[in-house]
Amino acid sequence: MTELTLSELAAAIAGRKVSSLEATEACLERIGRLNARLRAFITLDAEGARARARALDADLAAGRRRGPLHGVPLAYKDLCHVPGLPTSCGTRTAEYFTSEIECTAVARLSAAGAVTLGKLNMTELALGPFGDNPHHGDVDNPWKAGHVSGGSSSGSGAAVAAGLAFGALGSDTGGSIRLPAACCGIVGLKPTYGRVSRAGAMPLSWSLDHLGPMTRSVRDAALMLELIAGQDPHDATSSPHPVGTPSATLEAPVRGLRVALPENYYFDGVTDEARAAVEAAARALGSLGARVETLRLPDPAALIDVAGILARAESSSIHTRIARDRPHELGDAVRARLEVGFHVSAHDYLQAGRLRARLTREFVDEVFGQVDAVLTPTIPEAPPLRAAVTAPPVDEVVRRMGRFSRLTRPFNTLGLPVLAVPAGFTPDGRPLGLSIAGRPFDEATVLRLGHAWEQAADWRARRPPV
Amino acid sequence: MTELTLSELAAAIAGRKVSSLEATEACLERIGRLNARLRAFITLDAEGARARARALDADLAAGRRRGPLHGVPLAYKDLCHVPGLPTSCGTRTAEYFTSEIECTAVARLSAAGAVTLGKLNMTELALGPFGDNPHHGDVDNPWKAGHVSGGSSSGSGAAVAAGLAFGALGSDTGGSIRLPAACCGIVGLKPTYGRVSRAGAMPLSWSLDHLGPMTRSVRDAALMLELIAGQDPHDATSSPHPVGTPSATLEAPVRGLRVALPENYYFDGVTDEARAAVEAAARALGSLGARVETLRLPDPAALIDVAGILARAESSSIHTRIARDRPHELGDAVRARLEVGFHVSAHDYLQAGRLRARLTREFVDEVFGQVDAVLTPTIPEAPPLRAAVTAPPVDEVVRRMGRFSRLTRPFNTLGLPVLAVPAGFTPDGRPLGLSIAGRPFDEATVLRLGHAWEQAADWRARRPPV
Repeated sequence: MTELTLSELAAAIAGRKVSSLEATEACLERIGRLNARLRAFITLDAEGARARARALDADLAAGRRRGPLHGVPLAYKDLCHVPGLPTSCGTRTAEYFTSEIECTAVARLSAAGAVTLGKLNMTELALGPFGDNPHHGDVDNPWKAGHVSGGSSSGSGAAVAAGLAFGALGSDTGGSIRLPAACCGIVGLKPTYGRVSRAGAMPLSWSLDHLGPMTRSVRDAALMLELIAGQDPHDATSSPHPVGTPSATLEAPVRGLRVALPENYYFDGVTDEARAAVEAAARALGSLGARVETLRLPDPAALIDVAGILARAESSSIHTRIARDRPHELGDAVRARLEVGFHVSAHDYLQAGRLRARLTREFVDEVFGQVDAVLTPTIPEAPPLRAAVTAPPVDEVVRRMGRFSRLTRPFNTLGLPVLAVPAGFTPDGRPLGLSIAGRPFDEATVLRLGHAWEQAADWRARRPPV
Repeated sequence: MTELTLSELAAAIAGRKVSSLEATEACLERIGRLNARLRAFITLDAEGARARARALDADLAAGRRRGPLHGVPLAYKDLCHVPGLPTSCGTRTAEYFTSEIECTAVARLSAAGAVTLGKLNMTELALGPFGDNPHHGDVDNPWKAGHVSGGSSSGSGAAVAAGLAFGALGSDTGGSIRLPAACCGIVGLKPTYGRVSRAGAMPLSWSLDHLGPMTRSVRDAALMLELIAGQDPHDATSSPHPVGTPSATLEAPVRGLRVALPENYYFDGVTDEARAAVEAAARALGSLGARVETLRLPDPAALIDVAGILARAESSSIHTRIARDRPHELGDAVRARLEVGFHVSAHDYLQAGRLRARLTREFVDEVFGQVDAVLTPTIPEAPPLRAAVTAPPVDEVVRRMGRFSRLTRPFNTLGLPVLAVPAGFTPDGRPLGLSIAGRPFDEATVLRLGHAWEQAADWRARRPPV
C-alpha cells in the first residue's frame, strides 16, 4: 500500500477501498522495519496515529469526510510545533524550542483529515545540506546506503521516498526542502516567500525561511500546497494572494510556455550527468511544445552573498541562547556558523536587505520578461558518500556545504517558487535533480511543468531499494 | 486671514467668503516678511502656488470642489518628495534624496484640494530635536526669538505657528513632530505606526518613522489625518485598519474616559512649570468628567535603548553614501551620530526588534487595560535658548539632544498614537506641551481628549508675537 501516492491513497480511503488505520499500520510497519537504518523519525506517535486513524475511519463510515486528506498519514520536520509532541529542531534538547501555537501548516493539514505519524529528523537547527545529525543519527539515503540524504529536511526526504509516510512538511532557508527532495528522488516545493505561513515552526532565518510539501508526485505537492497556503494572522509575512487550485491545471498543455536553460553559472562545476539530466528534461518539455531558450541569468554570486549575510545574522539572533549556554552540545560546523553570525554588522545586514530588494526586482524583470520558468540542476552532483563530505576539518565542511547548496540558495534570496523534481538516476542508482523556478506566486506554472516532465519520464515508477 | 485655522479657512473658501488666491497671497506676504527671521522655508514655490490657487478658484467658481482642503495653502517638511521641487532633507545638497514617486501623503492632500507653498526647513537628515541647521539657518521660535523651535520638523512648527501656512506635514522618528509642535505652541499628531504611508518621504529609521500633521487646532489635525491615512501599495508597513472620521467625534463628551497621569519617570527632571501645565490639563479633563488616575508606567529606559539601537543602525544604513562621501558637509553632531550607527551589530539590532515586540505587547496590555490615554509632558522644559543647547562640545550636544527628546522617544518604539497639544505658557511667553498617548489605531480618542482640553484652555486664541 505504501507504494501509492498521497493523492492515490486519499482517493482509495474516500472510496472505502482501504482504511486510514490500514494505511497508518502500513507506515508503522515500514517505520519499524526501516527507521533503524534510515533514521528518518525522531519522534514516533504510533498510538496517537492509530487513535486518530480509527476516529477518521469512524467518521467516514458515518459519512463525515473531513477534507481532501481524510485518513492520510503524514509526518513533519521536527521544527514544526505539534501539540503533545516535543520539538528538538534537530538538537539534543527540546527545551529551547517551544511555541504557544501549533504550526499553522500542520493544523491546516490536520483539519483536512491528515493523520500525524510523528516528527522527522533534520540537520541540527536546520543548518546544513547533508542530512547528518550527531544527536539523532545521520539520515541515510534510501536509494544508496551511506550516501547523503540531503538536508536540512533529511528525515522528510527519506521518509517520503521510502514509504514511511505519504507526504511530509519540510522547511527551506537555503535549499532544505529541495536538496533532500533531489537526493531522495522525490518532489519538493519551496513556495513563493509569503505563500505559506511559518507560524508555529522554529525559524532559522525568517527573511529566507519557507515551509513546503515534500511528496512522491507533483500532484501531491500541488494538493498539499493548496491546503497549507494562505494568509495567517500569526505570520505577518504571509500573503493574502490567493493560491487558486494548481492541482486542477496540472494537465493543461505546456505548449507555448517559455522555459529557460541558463547558459551561465548554473552548470559550472556541475557533473556531466547532473547537467545531462536537466538537459534531457528540457528536451522532453520541448517535445511537448514548450519553447526552450538558452538564457544568461543575472549573476547569482550577489544573491548568495545576500543570503549568507541575512542567514548568519538572523540564525545567530534566533539561536542566541543555545549558542551561548550549550555551545559544546552543538555540532562543530553548526557552532562555527552560528559564531560567525554574531559578528555581522547591522549595517551589512540592512544593506543586504536593501540589495536583495533591488536584485529581486531586476531578476524578475529581466528573466520573467523573457520566459515563464527557469530550469536548473537542484544538486551539482548525485548524492555523495556522507563520510566524504562530513569529514573534518570543519572549515572544509562549511565550504562543502556552500558548494552543495549553491544552486538552491539564490532562490531563497529571490523568494521565487521552485519545484524540485527527480531528473533520473546515475548508472549506480543515485538520484539526480531538476529545479523549476517561476514567477512570484505562480506555483501553478512550475507545478504544471513539473507534472508534464514527471509524466514523460520513464523512471517515474522506480522505488528505492529499501 | 492667516489667523484662521485650516478648517476655518477651508469653510471660508467653500463658502466663497475668501478665495484660495487671497489665502495664498496672505501666506506669501507673511513668508516674505518673516522668513528671514524664522527660516521656516527652504524652498518657496510662490508662482506654482499662485497658479494652483487660481486654478482652484476657477474650479470652485465652476462648481467643482476638489475636496475638504479645496484652496488651502499648506507646506511640507523638506523630506517629502513633491514633483518639481528639490528635496534637501536639511542638508546642503539635494542629490542624495531623490524618489521615483511623489510623497503619498502630499499627493492625498493635493487631491483633497491643497495648495503647495513650498518645502520647510528641518534639522539636517531629521537628526536632532533643537531645530538648528548649519545649511539653511536655524529655525527660530516664533514666540521668543533666539529660542529653540524644536526639531526635526522645525520649519513645519514655525511656519504653522507664525501663520506662514495653514498646516504642514512633519515626520517623527523620536519626537520630530511633537517637539516642534510643543516648542512652537501648535498641535502635532504622531499617528499609530502604519496609519500613514511614508512612501515618497526620505526615511531616517523606517521602523520608527511616522508622518503626521502639524496644525493650529486639534480639529485641523483630525481632518488632515483622515485625508492622509490609509494603506498604500508603496509602503508595505501601511495598515488597512480604517481610520474612520475622528473629526466627527471631537465634540463627544470625555466623561468616563480613563486618563493616566504617570507617577514615575515621566516627570523626573521635568521643570516645575512643565509639570504643572500637564497637571492643569489633567484637572481640566477631570472637571469635564474624565477619570484621572495616577499610574506607574513600565520603565521607559528599555524603550529608549531599543529606539536608539534601531535608529542608529537604520539611519546609518540609509545615509551611508552621504556619510562616506561628504562627511565634512554634515554637522558635527549629525556626523557623530551616523558614525556610531556603523558599529551596531546585526545581533543587537535584531534583538532590539524582538525586545520591542515584547515591550510593546506588555505596555499595551498593562497600561491600556487600565486607562484609555496617558498624559505626559512633551518637552521637559519650555524651549531653551538655542545657543545654550547647541554649543560644543559635540558629545555634550548629543547628550542634551537625548535629554530633550526622552519623553517622546518611547512612543516611537511603541508605535502608539500621540497627540502633542499646547499646555500653556511660561510667564515669559514660552510654550509648554502636553502629550496624549492612546491605544494602537485609536487616534480618535486622543484627538477627542485633545480637543476637549484645547476648548477648555484660556490661552487658545493666543498668537505668537510675530
